[in-house]
Amino acid sequence: MNPPPNPPFHHRISIPFQDVDLAGMVFFAHFFRYAHETYEIFMTAIGHPLDGILREAVFALPLVHAEADYKKPLRLGDTTLIELSLKRLGESSFSLHYLFRGGDGEPRATAETVHVALDVELGRPCAIPARLRDALKPYEKTNI
Amino acid sequence: MNPPPNPPFHHRISIPFQDVDLAGMVFFAHFFRYAHETYEIFMTAIGHPLDGILREAVFALPLVHAEADYKKPLRLGDTTLIELSLKRLGESSFSLHYLFRGGDGEPRATAETVHVALDVELGRPCAIPARLRDALKPYEKTNI
Amino acid sequence: MNPPPNPPFHHRISIPFQDVDLAGMVFFAHFFRYAHETYEIFMTAIGHPLDGILREAVFALPLVHAEADYKKPLRLGDTTLIELSLKRLGESSFSLHYLFRGGDGEPRATAETVHVALDVELGRPCAIPARLRDALKPYEKTNI
Amino acid sequence: MNPPPNPPFHHRISIPFQDVDLAGMVFFAHFFRYAHETYEIFMTAIGHPLDGILREAVFALPLVHAEADYKKPLRLGDTTLIELSLKRLGESSFSLHYLFRGGDGEPRATAETVHVALDVELGRPCAIPARLRDALKPYEKTNI
Repeated sequence: MNPPPNPPFHHRISIPFQDVDLAGMVFFAHFFRYAHETYEIFMTAIGHPLDGILREAVFALPLVHAEADYKKPLRLGDTTLIELSLKRLGESSFSLHYLFRGGDGEPRATAETVHVALDVELGRPCAIPARLRDALKPYEKTNI
Repeated sequence: MNPPPNPPFHHRISIPFQDVDLAGMVFFAHFFRYAHETYEIFMTAIGHPLDGILREAVFALPLVHAEADYKKPLRLGDTTLIELSLKRLGESSFSLHYLFRGGDGEPRATAETVHVALDVELGRPCAIPARLRDALKPYEKTNI
Repeated sequence: MNPPPNPPFHHRISIPFQDVDLAGMVFFAHFFRYAHETYEIFMTAIGHPLDGILREAVFALPLVHAEADYKKPLRLGDTTLIELSLKRLGESSFSLHYLFRGGDGEPRATAETVHVALDVELGRPCAIPARLRDALKPYEKTNI
Repeated sequence: MNPPPNPPFHHRISIPFQDVDLAGMVFFAHFFRYAHETYEIFMTAIGHPLDGILREAVFALPLVHAEADYKKPLRLGDTTLIELSLKRLGESSFSLHYLFRGGDGEPRATAETVHVALDVELGRPCAIPARLRDALKPYEKTNI
């Protein structure tokens, strides 16, 4: 019998007026902003707030890739529930997956960001610190 | 004996990473975005959501003026509590006041937006509809 | 002997202060904004300005996919030269490729956007209009 | 006989698709972004690029006030010509004025930003450095 899949991390955003374009849809680039805001709140929730990482300046987590697929538009007045999960946990990089649901629960878009652990002093990739690795692991998507 | 002052409308925003500039402070223009987001949530709370106003297309509420004063910076990791109150309620226009507090409760910035009621068909200023006027009134700032 | 490759469309952007984050790099989501601005100027240059497409309301070109790879950061004071080329021209969709060069001419990032031609009245994919197809074709990337 | 007024500094911006809201107008907060972009290009043109000021870290020029008045909307497809001039040059602060013209040359909006010279080490206002003062002076608006 399989263990139950890990639950994703949730964040909810009300679509601001200014993010909706003349075609009545959230402009595509804003989904990346929403994804990153979800990532920030997630990192704080798991004990690795970005401001702390920046202040300590031991490692950084720059993005090396981002992508999104758009299925149905989000519109003014909509609220989107964003589900963040860990797609891949490598030695020195990890991928996060974002599912954007509309108010009706239906998927509107998905996104992915790939982050590389960087040794700030040496300026090159390093192993993801064990404490961060342990904090990310429970959000691994087990049933994609 | 004076009646107690009306309580302002509250909205809380966690500063996103991308809104903080190279000097470590929230870039000044973002305060206007935060103000407008607060205004949108306020309008929904008092029964006049912007998407409804746009859809009905009877009147519009374009901004004719906006200003802000910056006292102390908001920084990465900060949360700001925004207090919205009605500064002035005229015949065909109204002014909203925004106070941005930091995590310590101290003021960081203030802003003001002036909105004009516009008859969409005629394309010129009109009286603020009575239902909106009544909804705005309880947020009048009585003790500035 | 092969014909010379088609030249890409060029657009230059000076990095605004507010687009640079606390880590001193252009925030990843802004590359999508820059890509779209380049796309808009490109569409105008080839005779299909977005405002005209919206006004005529015969077809629309919503994005269904966007992605970017980040190689080296763009920083404050940098100017980026963006080279737009046509990566794929399908029956009812096309892909645009964007190469972002730094002031030294070296690649900083690449991006891709996929656009679907949509019949506005029917609300479903349609063939890319012949006039647009002919206008896109000369920018096909022949040497990827 | 009066000397001729100083000419303002010019910068031109094509309105990006994403800056136009559902009401078909440039969202009010973007005017502050445009003003700051004009300010950055102006500061570079007069020999005081912001990245240099940040790197030298002798003084900073934080904004303490910003305001805008909106007369007529800018729309998709519009280009705006922004005229920057020096409104006030004080001992430790200065005000810049921005006039946004539409494609027809008519004013669309005006804005103002107030900057304070700050001694970075002491963390308090200081006199505007003489070299910057001399560079600002020729843009003083002599005929408001």
